[in-house]
Amino acid sequence: MEVTGEFAIGIDIGGTTTKFGIVNHRGEISQKGDIETTKYRTINKFIDQLYIELLPYMEKVGGENLIKGIGVGAPNGNFYTGNIEYAPNLHWKGIIPLAKLISEKFNKPCTLTNDANAAAVGEMMYGASRGMRDFIMITLGTGVGSGIVANGQLIYGHDGFAGELGHTVIRPGGRLHWGTGKKGSLEAYTSATGICITAKEMLHERSNEKSLLRDIPRDEITSKFVCEAAQKGDKIAKDVFKFTGEILGEALSNFVMFSSPEAIILFGGVIKAGNILLNPVKRSMEKNLLPIFQNKVKLLFSELKESDAAILGASALVWEIKPEGK
Amino acid sequence: MEVTGEFAIGIDIGGTTTKFGIVNHRGEISQKGDIETTKYRTINKFIDQLYIELLPYMEKVGGENLIKGIGVGAPNGNFYTGNIEYAPNLHWKGIIPLAKLISEKFNKPCTLTNDANAAAVGEMMYGASRGMRDFIMITLGTGVGSGIVANGQLIYGHDGFAGELGHTVIRPGGRLHWGTGKKGSLEAYTSATGICITAKEMLHERSNEKSLLRDIPRDEITSKFVCEAAQKGDKIAKDVFKFTGEILGEALSNFVMFSSPEAIILFGGVIKAGNILLNPVKRSMEKNLLPIFQNKVKLLFSELKESDAAILGASALVWEIKPEGK
Repeated sequence: MEVTGEFAIGIDIGGTTTKFGIVNHRGEISQKGDIETTKYRTINKFIDQLYIELLPYMEKVGGENLIKGIGVGAPNGNFYTGNIEYAPNLHWKGIIPLAKLISEKFNKPCTLTNDANAAAVGEMMYGASRGMRDFIMITLGTGVGSGIVANGQLIYGHDGFAGELGHTVIRPGGRLHWGTGKKGSLEAYTSATGICITAKEMLHERSNEKSLLRDIPRDEITSKFVCEAAQKGDKIAKDVFKFTGEILGEALSNFVMFSSPEAIILFGGVIKAGNILLNPVKRSMEKNLLPIFQNKVKLLFSELKESDAAILGASALVWEIKPEGK
Repeated sequence: MEVTGEFAIGIDIGGTTTKFGIVNHRGEISQKGDIETTKYRTINKFIDQLYIELLPYMEKVGGENLIKGIGVGAPNGNFYTGNIEYAPNLHWKGIIPLAKLISEKFNKPCTLTNDANAAAVGEMMYGASRGMRDFIMITLGTGVGSGIVANGQLIYGHDGFAGELGHTVIRPGGRLHWGTGKKGSLEAYTSATGICITAKEMLHERSNEKSLLRDIPRDEITSKFVCEAAQKGDKIAKDVFKFTGEILGEALSNFVMFSSPEAIILFGGVIKAGNILLNPVKRSMEKNLLPIFQNKVKLLFSELKESDAAILGASALVWEIKPEGK
């Protein structure tokens, strides 16, 4: 049933930039803007500024009374508590009761979750997994995040921290993770950061081999640069994505045996590599699956415009707000 | 709300024996029996015999009209279709429309699921995970099965095959699985079968070291025997469980990062090893978890009497039967 004349505010808090927008039921962003996250020393000043920015937008769509609520995606955002808890990439430290503070300032219900979960909800409502009851969202950016939907619901777990698939170990005793100190996690290999490390390792191991990746200083290699080199046919760059894809495929096959999703949606900067990434991922995933799971799981790229996805995902949480907030 | 005077039939179909019983809402088995699964050449003859056996039991509890329905746990039982699909351990081949056949014979609704899922439901209703909305059941028997509950519901996945955690790869390129042909799966190491293989490998590698395990021929070593030797203080036998526990703990930490359960319940013959298994599992799981997950997840043994658990779990499905069957 379509409710007309109602809007949701979506806010995506990133380490550098916070994006926000006003979204209708069809997932159309009618107003959007952004502020620098790092500019506001205290969380209260940050929220005050959000309110100042959003007030004219709310007026434009017909006034505050048409806003049903506010959805926020943020690193380490906990759905159950509404708190951001010890987010390493934000400069506000400790536990921040974000949903409560925003709700009080705007006088609207506010739902918080982590950024990958928000992306999963957005994809389910407006993107590649529309109508699916079982799928897994994998975000491949600076880090690797995930949002898991089963029986049509996000899996939050008993404490709100479910879906940390980037930290599952895929190579026991393998590559050391720069942040967690754990060895062999998926994020250590398949994040943008991990891709750069792989590239540097391969350049070192194959020091006699020509590569476009040698045209810039080692420290300036980015995953975007590796991707562009691969698209130009560079052998080492292509092998970097082959290696990355194989590891990601193995991990995905494990995830499939967990929740048997209809689809796995890949999202984030790394997917710009397109088939250079997707082909080895698919090959490796299928190879590692039991026959009963083979050739069933759709492996898809996000259908949401990347710059809008975060706002859409966060806003989509609003339509799921329950009276008790859970 | 307690419904009195209603009963459920629970049927657990194993490769050798099929157990059945009539169970009330409190999880009390008032009548139980078993038949040999292998004795019945066709599925229809098998179901006819089940009906013959259960008829006097139904009379004893007050007649067929007090039976609300029938729950069945069976290897490769698919909740969505009600079919047993290509079960390697049953002698009826192909796809068997079991729920339909039983429902027609008994004229009652029938719900089918795989044995590990049934065990999870039983534990949730009557056992160690009573009242929990998020937990994972791991069955450690000849094979390794699992049932995953999130948001208070079993996760079946889009096709009914979710929860094959025994086949997730925990040691890429590791031990070859005798049945699947895959390398390094959890089942290859932590099933009763896997434990025997580890014992034989260790006996071979440490051929100069005394061990109670050398008192019997290599081919007669069972996981029960390894367990008894470990309990008597045998060094190699203890190391077998230490190795097994370490691998299981690593796998559990990955599962925790997936669905963040309140508890993990271990079930099946292998748990008779008690703390000889539990201590290394716990140590290894905690070591591999991110700090936000540490010291939160309860690691518990099943509270159900093993001989009754299968019947209880299957019967518990009945109280979940929905009008549309899904």
